[in-house]
Amino acid sequence: MKPNDKTPNNGRREFIQKSALAGAGLAFLSTGGVLAGQNREKPAAPNIKSKGYAAKDASGKLSPWQFERRPLGDNDILIDIKYASICHSDIHQMKGDWGQQKYPQVPGHEIAGIVAAVGKNVTRFNVGDRAGVGCMVDSCMTCESCKHGEEQFCDNGATLFTYGYPDKTSPSGITQGGYSNNIVVRDHFAVHIPDHLSLQEAAPLLCAGITTYSPLMNANFRRGDKVGVAGIGGLGHLAIKLAVSKGADVYAFTTSADKVTDILSFGAKEAIVVNDLSKLKPYKGKLDYLISTIPAQFDVAAYASVVKRNGFFTQVGMPAGFQLTVSNIALANTHVNFNASLIGGIPETQEVVYYCADNKVTPKIEIIKAEEINDAWTKVMNKQARYRFVVDAATF
Amino acid sequence: MKPNDKTPNNGRREFIQKSALAGAGLAFLSTGGVLAGQNREKPAAPNIKSKGYAAKDASGKLSPWQFERRPLGDNDILIDIKYASICHSDIHQMKGDWGQQKYPQVPGHEIAGIVAAVGKNVTRFNVGDRAGVGCMVDSCMTCESCKHGEEQFCDNGATLFTYGYPDKTSPSGITQGGYSNNIVVRDHFAVHIPDHLSLQEAAPLLCAGITTYSPLMNANFRRGDKVGVAGIGGLGHLAIKLAVSKGADVYAFTTSADKVTDILSFGAKEAIVVNDLSKLKPYKGKLDYLISTIPAQFDVAAYASVVKRNGFFTQVGMPAGFQLTVSNIALANTHVNFNASLIGGIPETQEVVYYCADNKVTPKIEIIKAEEINDAWTKVMNKQARYRFVVDAATF
Repeated sequence: MKPNDKTPNNGRREFIQKSALAGAGLAFLSTGGVLAGQNREKPAAPNIKSKGYAAKDASGKLSPWQFERRPLGDNDILIDIKYASICHSDIHQMKGDWGQQKYPQVPGHEIAGIVAAVGKNVTRFNVGDRAGVGCMVDSCMTCESCKHGEEQFCDNGATLFTYGYPDKTSPSGITQGGYSNNIVVRDHFAVHIPDHLSLQEAAPLLCAGITTYSPLMNANFRRGDKVGVAGIGGLGHLAIKLAVSKGADVYAFTTSADKVTDILSFGAKEAIVVNDLSKLKPYKGKLDYLISTIPAQFDVAAYASVVKRNGFFTQVGMPAGFQLTVSNIALANTHVNFNASLIGGIPETQEVVYYCADNKVTPKIEIIKAEEINDAWTKVMNKQARYRFVVDAATF
Repeated sequence: MKPNDKTPNNGRREFIQKSALAGAGLAFLSTGGVLAGQNREKPAAPNIKSKGYAAKDASGKLSPWQFERRPLGDNDILIDIKYASICHSDIHQMKGDWGQQKYPQVPGHEIAGIVAAVGKNVTRFNVGDRAGVGCMVDSCMTCESCKHGEEQFCDNGATLFTYGYPDKTSPSGITQGGYSNNIVVRDHFAVHIPDHLSLQEAAPLLCAGITTYSPLMNANFRRGDKVGVAGIGGLGHLAIKLAVSKGADVYAFTTSADKVTDILSFGAKEAIVVNDLSKLKPYKGKLDYLISTIPAQFDVAAYASVVKRNGFFTQVGMPAGFQLTVSNIALANTHVNFNASLIGGIPETQEVVYYCADNKVTPKIEIIKAEEINDAWTKVMNKQARYRFVVDAATF
């Protein structure tokens, strides 16, 4: 793909590009020795034993599963998982809402833990470091998108998502996620978690945090601008906190009247209970920007109408089949630009973790045991999560 | 609705607003006299006889119909229609694709003719003037949108579209369009057609012209930018010509291989025959802007992928039910802003007519008789129009 020369943040992109090139050089220099060493001396390393909770079918029910992960590679780190949190995407994917799945499959892409081992080429992490893993565990690392820190858009289509994706290095043939006691991951795809952020509060940032942070930053809103957040669950409540922290006046749109007190405690200026689309009318053309985390079909143009003409509306919630139906004529009436956003690159994921640590932006969480996961999933589907369930990995 | 202070073109908007206020003042001054005069002296004016082609049901077939229009009001002009052209929207609406219709209904919102009479308050037109009517024939004229020249977005919902909309002033109860020999219209909703533009070439500008011109101008592309046009029919071929005239390098995407020669003759740099979505791949991320006139369901995200990240993609074609289904995850992969546009306001409609006259941007048309309308509709549906059928109103 031809790179877009007009994209803002060239300074940051150049930095990332140079860093990536430097990294590629180091890897090249070390390849000969590594291969030579493997061929001559080392016996094949054993797979790593792991245990967690897996979906065995499309029922949406998880149960304990013991499995194996690949041996630690030279560019890998092994993380002893301490906490893994529950994202609505886990449920969608395990139930086959986004396509047929291979089972058993361990979900989970909000992972925080302690580095237990590092491969011989790894320089970014040491044993004992606090580390997190989000939605990706590998990519080509050589294309323009990867070199520019947008591994989720790998031009070679080699983005490897954290669970359920074909992976020859995995003994089970697919990537296995974070509802488990450990994970082996290429070092580039792990981020540092600073000491002043708890691991349990860091976990949700790895998906919910970056997924809302990236479009909010891209929206370039100014202090005092009116930012709307639609859908106040795991992602939405973090979107409120992030936008408030960045100086926005936040208008939160929820279908759950019993979330209003929480929403105001997160710093929102107003909480609007949209039990009927007419509740949107007083806000017509009022907001500078809107982000929706709604993970289901909804009336896109009706929500777009709260944004000022020529404003922007970003959808990050992913409905079943990823399909959203939009009334083209109603959208025309709003003059609003609709876009969609999918997580964020690794550099930006690191950025949101540091930002949240430094600015005390933390998710509201409830820690549960592994055996409570199925109940928690039901609560997520019933909009009863307040606001992120975090599984204590010691209970797997 | 709160006006959007950040909208560009404040200078033009202020001019329009001031002009509108001046107009409103004139109307106010004259109201007393008019009413007094009507009450005291004048007998009720008779309805105006009209004949045209109407749909009698949802079959999509038209037949001759004699009907009546309202008497000439004080703010009205009567236009002897000379030419009315065929828009795909005519077909969609008559067939009930956009909702149940009242019949008989005369379609047609691309109308050009000669002013035959003017109401006593009319100052903008004289008998004998060349005039055009597009998609609207009335609105509240007092709200912010109307005062800002965006009557299609009337905040009071009073935009009266040219055919099929409830209209108490119409003897048939609904507005009746331009496939007929005359029309009575509020003077504000008619535009001037200058002498150096033929009436038959002016007609298609009233919908196809403004519908593509408005978003193209809003896109603010620069000379040499790469502008894509998807769907090369009545609207698309004008979009090509307008974008070329404004200095863009135009990439035209069509499903009709036999349009390539024409497309290049319109000034496009490339004509891409998309008989398979894989044909879009070489253009991934290449274009600065894309406009789609495709009036049916299509893969929105696949087309969006030809636009650079953070670029814009405008949909103006209106599919059945106005509903477009979008893959949210595929749209996320493009980072492209999707918006929709519906015609344009009256001042901008006047602007495109003058622009096309001055810059010799004219539609490629085929003049037909009224009795050929049904065949022409079939050709439009079969993508056989080259590129706008214009009905000679003398044959109604």
